[in-house]
Amino acid sequence: MTSTPNRPLAIVILAAGQGTRMKSALHKVLHPVAGRPMLLHLLASAAELAPERQVVVVGAGREQVEAAVAGMGVAVAVQEQQLGTGHAVAQAHDALAGFAGDVLILYGDVPLVSAATMKAMVDRLNRGDEPRAVVLGFRPADAAAYGRIIADGQGVIQKMVEFKDASEAERTVTLCNSGLMAVRSTDLFVLLDSIGNENAAGEYYLPDIVMLPGGQSAVIETDAIEVAGVNSRIELAGVEAAWQAQRRLAAMRDGATLVAPDTVFFSHDTVLGRDVVVEPNVVFGPGVTVEDDVVIHAFSHIEGATVRTGAEIGPYARLRPGADIGQKAKVGNFVEIKKAVLGEGAKANHLSYIGDASVGANANIGAGTITCNYDGFLKYRTEIGAGAFIGSNSALVAPVKVGDGAIVGAGSVLTKDVEGDALAVARGKQAVIAGWAAKFRATMAAKKAGK
Amino acid sequence: MTSTPNRPLAIVILAAGQGTRMKSALHKVLHPVAGRPMLLHLLASAAELAPERQVVVVGAGREQVEAAVAGMGVAVAVQEQQLGTGHAVAQAHDALAGFAGDVLILYGDVPLVSAATMKAMVDRLNRGDEPRAVVLGFRPADAAAYGRIIADGQGVIQKMVEFKDASEAERTVTLCNSGLMAVRSTDLFVLLDSIGNENAAGEYYLPDIVMLPGGQSAVIETDAIEVAGVNSRIELAGVEAAWQAQRRLAAMRDGATLVAPDTVFFSHDTVLGRDVVVEPNVVFGPGVTVEDDVVIHAFSHIEGATVRTGAEIGPYARLRPGADIGQKAKVGNFVEIKKAVLGEGAKANHLSYIGDASVGANANIGAGTITCNYDGFLKYRTEIGAGAFIGSNSALVAPVKVGDGAIVGAGSVLTKDVEGDALAVARGKQAVIAGWAAKFRATMAAKKAGK
Amino acid sequence: MTSTPNRPLAIVILAAGQGTRMKSALHKVLHPVAGRPMLLHLLASAAELAPERQVVVVGAGREQVEAAVAGMGVAVAVQEQQLGTGHAVAQAHDALAGFAGDVLILYGDVPLVSAATMKAMVDRLNRGDEPRAVVLGFRPADAAAYGRIIADGQGVIQKMVEFKDASEAERTVTLCNSGLMAVRSTDLFVLLDSIGNENAAGEYYLPDIVMLPGGQSAVIETDAIEVAGVNSRIELAGVEAAWQAQRRLAAMRDGATLVAPDTVFFSHDTVLGRDVVVEPNVVFGPGVTVEDDVVIHAFSHIEGATVRTGAEIGPYARLRPGADIGQKAKVGNFVEIKKAVLGEGAKANHLSYIGDASVGANANIGAGTITCNYDGFLKYRTEIGAGAFIGSNSALVAPVKVGDGAIVGAGSVLTKDVEGDALAVARGKQAVIAGWAAKFRATMAAKKAGK
Repeated sequence: MTSTPNRPLAIVILAAGQGTRMKSALHKVLHPVAGRPMLLHLLASAAELAPERQVVVVGAGREQVEAAVAGMGVAVAVQEQQLGTGHAVAQAHDALAGFAGDVLILYGDVPLVSAATMKAMVDRLNRGDEPRAVVLGFRPADAAAYGRIIADGQGVIQKMVEFKDASEAERTVTLCNSGLMAVRSTDLFVLLDSIGNENAAGEYYLPDIVMLPGGQSAVIETDAIEVAGVNSRIELAGVEAAWQAQRRLAAMRDGATLVAPDTVFFSHDTVLGRDVVVEPNVVFGPGVTVEDDVVIHAFSHIEGATVRTGAEIGPYARLRPGADIGQKAKVGNFVEIKKAVLGEGAKANHLSYIGDASVGANANIGAGTITCNYDGFLKYRTEIGAGAFIGSNSALVAPVKVGDGAIVGAGSVLTKDVEGDALAVARGKQAVIAGWAAKFRATMAAKKAGK
Repeated sequence: MTSTPNRPLAIVILAAGQGTRMKSALHKVLHPVAGRPMLLHLLASAAELAPERQVVVVGAGREQVEAAVAGMGVAVAVQEQQLGTGHAVAQAHDALAGFAGDVLILYGDVPLVSAATMKAMVDRLNRGDEPRAVVLGFRPADAAAYGRIIADGQGVIQKMVEFKDASEAERTVTLCNSGLMAVRSTDLFVLLDSIGNENAAGEYYLPDIVMLPGGQSAVIETDAIEVAGVNSRIELAGVEAAWQAQRRLAAMRDGATLVAPDTVFFSHDTVLGRDVVVEPNVVFGPGVTVEDDVVIHAFSHIEGATVRTGAEIGPYARLRPGADIGQKAKVGNFVEIKKAVLGEGAKANHLSYIGDASVGANANIGAGTITCNYDGFLKYRTEIGAGAFIGSNSALVAPVKVGDGAIVGAGSVLTKDVEGDALAVARGKQAVIAGWAAKFRATMAAKKAGK
Repeated sequence: MTSTPNRPLAIVILAAGQGTRMKSALHKVLHPVAGRPMLLHLLASAAELAPERQVVVVGAGREQVEAAVAGMGVAVAVQEQQLGTGHAVAQAHDALAGFAGDVLILYGDVPLVSAATMKAMVDRLNRGDEPRAVVLGFRPADAAAYGRIIADGQGVIQKMVEFKDASEAERTVTLCNSGLMAVRSTDLFVLLDSIGNENAAGEYYLPDIVMLPGGQSAVIETDAIEVAGVNSRIELAGVEAAWQAQRRLAAMRDGATLVAPDTVFFSHDTVLGRDVVVEPNVVFGPGVTVEDDVVIHAFSHIEGATVRTGAEIGPYARLRPGADIGQKAKVGNFVEIKKAVLGEGAKANHLSYIGDASVGANANIGAGTITCNYDGFLKYRTEIGAGAFIGSNSALVAPVKVGDGAIVGAGSVLTKDVEGDALAVARGKQAVIAGWAAKFRATMAAKKAGK
């Protein structure tokens, strides 16, 4: 989306609702969808239109929102009192001082609006007929109590009416008002000044600017899913499910096999190559790139990791941030990899923890191997050379290096470096007491019987 | 539900069906839903009405049912021959000897009837118009072959008719008979004596008491899901799914985030605090309490455990009965906790088994730590002090104590107590043979080639 | 299905489509459903009719298909140019040289056609009215753009018409053409020679043989799911889901409890006994047999394994090929079993890897036990006797034997055989330095502060 609208753009995101139904100490717009706060979804989509200004209007929880957008060039305006959406937008006045261009009004709890839809709204505002405002409409499966939009064939709005004020005929209209709007900055605050609060709630309603005399507004339509709002955790789960459903279809269209799509959970930024096979029950956290021809077996959990061409992951593999799994490498069951690079063809197939480490090409990490990377204060690195063989159930006490081609005997606790091609063994000697077990059993059986 | 009906209450649960379609050696009413046998769901709901008597009427499998209700004050009556539901209820006669009050008739394979519905039935029986019997009706999506209830505006039953005997007009009625009924004890056995078995099956049908001359019966309605019956494992799965769906909605309404609600499985008694986040694929067994602000990561399995405020669990954590995870404590991947208390801020993050143990506040359990709590006969305890640091891949051979602030070196096998603030190391010495690995590879390669 | 049709049978499977929408380097007909390539599903179903000849017609990717059917007595014919389905079938001419009987034409990307349906098609071809061809019809939920079949009450086809050529009246017909067909070998190639390619695509269409003059064809019907085709990974997931849904219902009907059926994934050849309980999130790979009264806990992954009566598996158990779990044996969490036999009542309950091993009856494998079966070149066996007790966190360096009733002390690295009833311990001595930990903490704290 390289072409941007002609005039500068500002976005105003309303996030002043109480969110009472969430029953949460976390600000509603910070609840995540696909591993990213809703507010950041909107900012990310809007970023594709390169806005000059970004304003979030908050009520309670200002600190949480400020922390979430810190360093992103977002102004936070405060609506002290809940006096309606029109009043909320008016709080952006100072943050937009000196700005001349288009203003796009979004809602922090309506996170799935796409950049394409945002752009279409702004484009419509800039069309020859110069509407005063552009409203985003949608046609829900059940129009229920949504406000209705009566528009002509060109999308010019004839009337916008709350459900409760609508006539029977108007209620048969299926085009509903999402609340999202684009308005020119030169008009916005003038219009807001003109609306009243003569209604039951005594609030200033943003949509009222549409029917003010002296201009025409237009509507464009989008899919209902894009304007789904989140007022409860049930609706949050619904939006998450809708997002995941779309993402799964896209993954399959792009050439990945999802054996059971409904059981695969993506993050907002997951990248999957071609001919990737994902078995049932796989969870992707943020920051994952999977290259071509990778198989991800069932029950794997992957975040912040890169999995290179032809690698095989799982089942029950956990890749944590900083895991970089080389081409044709294998990470097997009950294995955790963190901040560690596995070279091409390296294998860690069973019950291991590899953290703060580098593992050379074709090295083999035996079952039950643990890199002991932490002493309670600092983390230390383990370096394992190419072609090295780490015997099962070994503990590598970092900092420690195992040279290329070295072998570490099973059950060793390695505390010193091992040079290349050497054998290192660090374990106790085997002692045997014949008949001991039989006597022990007899004693214990007597003891148990005596109880 | 503190107000109970005026008259004493008895419940009779019919559980004499063969359950052939279950194809199971387990009695049908003992198949679990949400981790609890269906029969016990009914007894638990009925208990809210504080019944004076509880009778279960069984056919085959009497011993199984008796064992399941042992110590619960439930009489078990036996229906030797399968002569219909009316005949089954009649078998409760002796168990109700001397009882005067209301009798609520339930079905062991209809487990989801709520206490509120049971109470509503009894309340209706006690209303001024004094119906002889109260029938529980429902309106299924597809009324199919259910018996129909024709009632007036006050719910007084005009006619109750089997589907096969119903006229076309009667078949258009959507109110169906669930079979559940409330009747006064003084009427019940008199009425049962009056019904006949002149039908194709030669059975005595309980619903026949409704249309007997000399009195009026009433119907009250409930949701179809409450009266869903289980005659096959497919229906069992359906009832389980319905129960889970309701429970998930309740969890979200109460302030928990379920990222993917359909993948979270609750038990009948799971307790979740506010701002708990449950990631995809989490299974709760019976006896779990999760306090506020806990995060349960994907693929966790929790039963019989308490997880305190701010703790973090999983992914791939298994908490077993007796696990008590302290505030802000962490249990990570591939970690099993059984009969063990983790103090505030304690961590067991990777690949560990902690059983029959206490772990002090802020203690750190390294990756791969195993408490060796069993010698084949008895279990022994491991006590780890506050602030202790257990190095990775250690085995703690119980009974053993590690004092506050002590450090255990990685890879140690601890067999003796360690005093506070001491360092304990118990591992073999590292021996190295330079060049051995290179020679070994040459030998093995020759051997393989020689094959 | 012991009765086979009277005449010899040949099957021709068309697999020459490009499969472009799959975006895959793997030939479309080799993408698996239920763990088996689609092509092999068809060959397996057809095998129940004991065909004399089997021909697969391929375009690109011939080598992949040949490798997949190697040794199965399947001829591979090549369609060099994509000139339509009629042309594709014609490429089977040489492979059918000398064959006289019935020819069943299947599609490699329509994998769920049952043997019963195949047989019904051939049976119909052999009925008294001797149709020239038998077409397999179906009635989809949305007939959309499928070709329509107009037939009389006896299933004799009056007209078969592409959707685009169909009249409004013809489009109201719900019986659609699946493309599958049975034709006598003596007619097939004569008919194929008679069809033309005068259409927009310039292709020879197999269905055109139906309406050629000089004979009558018949239609039989099947369920839409049997003829679902796979042209994309989304459709592949759909066919997989349909297969799994049917399989789950069958498992429950046969007497297994699936607590959450939608979360259990079967393979094409999974065998489940009666009163098996499968908890949520279980994946069966190919080659699994589970006997009666087995409980499979959540998050288990089982392939190539036998689980005997009364055994208990999981949660988080991974059984790999060659695992043979004895009666009443237990395999617990984070345990991997590969090419290993566990005797009756043996237990491996926590965090273990048991590979290339035999474990005697009632032996107890402690938490964290690893069989070290691989030296980088060869695999070696571990033999553990009946009643042996392997202490936690032990490494058994194969080849090694532990005799009946022997005990291995926790944390041991076993390199030599242990005779029956003996105690073996192989670990380092415990050394303690009092006060060391306190000093260490002071040093590290100073170091951190100094940073």
